Amino acid sequence: MTGSVVLAVDLGGSAMKGAVIGENGEVIASETRATPRLQLIDALVELLEALRRAAGDRGYRVVAAGVVTPGIVDEDTGVVLYASNLHWRDVPLRGLLAERMPFPVAIGHDVRAAGLAEQLLGAARGSDDFVLVTIGTGVAAALITAGHTITGAAGAAGEFGHIPVVPGGEVCACGQIGCLEVYASAAGVTRRYAALGGAARSSREIVSRLGSDPLADAVWADATRVLAQGLAIMTLLLDPAVVVLGGGFSQAGSALLTPVTAGLAAGLAWREAPEVRLSHLGGNAGRTGAAILAFRAAGRGAVVDGWPPAD
Amino acid sequence: MTGSVVLAVDLGGSAMKGAVIGENGEVIASETRATPRLQLIDALVELLEALRRAAGDRGYRVVAAGVVTPGIVDEDTGVVLYASNLHWRDVPLRGLLAERMPFPVAIGHDVRAAGLAEQLLGAARGSDDFVLVTIGTGVAAALITAGHTITGAAGAAGEFGHIPVVPGGEVCACGQIGCLEVYASAAGVTRRYAALGGAARSSREIVSRLGSDPLADAVWADATRVLAQGLAIMTLLLDPAVVVLGGGFSQAGSALLTPVTAGLAAGLAWREAPEVRLSHLGGNAGRTGAAILAFRAAGRGAVVDGWPPAD
Repeated sequence: MTGSVVLAVDLGGSAMKGAVIGENGEVIASETRATPRLQLIDALVELLEALRRAAGDRGYRVVAAGVVTPGIVDEDTGVVLYASNLHWRDVPLRGLLAERMPFPVAIGHDVRAAGLAEQLLGAARGSDDFVLVTIGTGVAAALITAGHTITGAAGAAGEFGHIPVVPGGEVCACGQIGCLEVYASAAGVTRRYAALGGAARSSREIVSRLGSDPLADAVWADATRVLAQGLAIMTLLLDPAVVVLGGGFSQAGSALLTPVTAGLAAGLAWREAPEVRLSHLGGNAGRTGAAILAFRAAGRGAVVDGWPPAD
Repeated sequence: MTGSVVLAVDLGGSAMKGAVIGENGEVIASETRATPRLQLIDALVELLEALRRAAGDRGYRVVAAGVVTPGIVDEDTGVVLYASNLHWRDVPLRGLLAERMPFPVAIGHDVRAAGLAEQLLGAARGSDDFVLVTIGTGVAAALITAGHTITGAAGAAGEFGHIPVVPGGEVCACGQIGCLEVYASAAGVTRRYAALGGAARSSREIVSRLGSDPLADAVWADATRVLAQGLAIMTLLLDPAVVVLGGGFSQAGSALLTPVTAGLAAGLAWREAPEVRLSHLGGNAGRTGAAILAFRAAGRGAVVDGWPPAD
């Protein structure tokens, strides 16, 4: 057996999700490791080497690697300017990896890469004007307008979780007041539930108590109301045709989609709301986006046209 | 004397600002008329004919016209899909004008055209990532990212005045609650000053009383605080390098710029604020943008490179 494959890694604050992805989008091997606090570059290279061996053992040839990270990322230079979760500032990631790898390395932003994957294969398929909001521990967004992903003057666009939506509201871990993710994130919901006297290990557990636990209902109502307010702001500024909700929070399914859709429509008095959809790629969106960037770096971006959509 | 000129009209809800603009950006003639409630197309054509005569009388040849309007405008088709101030819905403006004019007619959105003018000649000169916020009776924004103006899926992007920033706040004329322009617009400031028992004919009169009238101070403090909050949201989402404040409100000068700049910086805990500047083109920005669109429609867009900047 022979064929070209790429290595794809979604490097997050808690986990490094890696995979070997083939020309038809198939996952040939995958491996997830915990993100270490120290010697992160070495750990990342070790994961890439392990994936490369896994590909070689199966007779595949690695043509490129793609690594996506949170934070402020300059895709053109491959430098991670700032990533608080990784404790990185001005890390020339592409250069560091390229000198240890005999193939091109693409560096991307995790949420923008996830947006690319949702656009080509997922819930935003065929749309040139959409936003992907990923809601996990924190909240971020990929903003796509007229087919272009907005990166901003300093690569810092899409910080949807930190837009101030509640004047005089609760303090965010970031130091600002009334940020969206204080109310509408896994961390925010869990913290606010605890502050009201509830005990839950995760936002998923809180969701499972909806309808039978008034504290859970109250915290969830705040979360979906604030998220709907944020989406109304996004709609009025950017006029997307579709909003995709991703990240772990979106596993709440209709418990999330129904109130957010209703709240968004109610908040817009004179224009239609964009369609709100749940992510199709879920937690794999970032890794899939990294694979797409890698095939592009290898000059093989067209292979993605043949990948099956994730429905 | 001879030369090529364009006709430029900024069609607003209260006034139609017209001008004959030459190849060097010079204003050869100008005429402003009140916007009628009825037979608006006829009145617009009459203004264009008058401008055309003024050009002809001076020996100039008209090569194109540019008309910019508020609302939801499709620049490609030249159709104004919706403009509440003009009582228009689905008006094929370019077609209606082109059949009466023997030269190309360009149709644009007033604020986006003003943004183009500020980018080429004004306060955002040289920037590919900026926002122009025009604050008059209402508030709107032109959003430019990586050199592209964001229009949105339905041409409705940039409705900065109607983003909901004060949950449970005051009702907007648009029917939504807590819109930015309820607090931070000429109409909003004047209405809120009156509601507190003050009497003023305009927001300019209120600004003139700052420091000596506690009611004026209170209303203005709310306006600048809400505007700073809105700009923080814009910054976190779009990461512009520059924010330009335009429209009649910007004539308040440092009374506006100083508190908004301070409020924006204070609202951003972990990233730098973009530079906030006052518009250079002021009330002429829309008309200047219309002239640029007209020269482009005539295939003469390059003439603008030689126009003197407005400083």
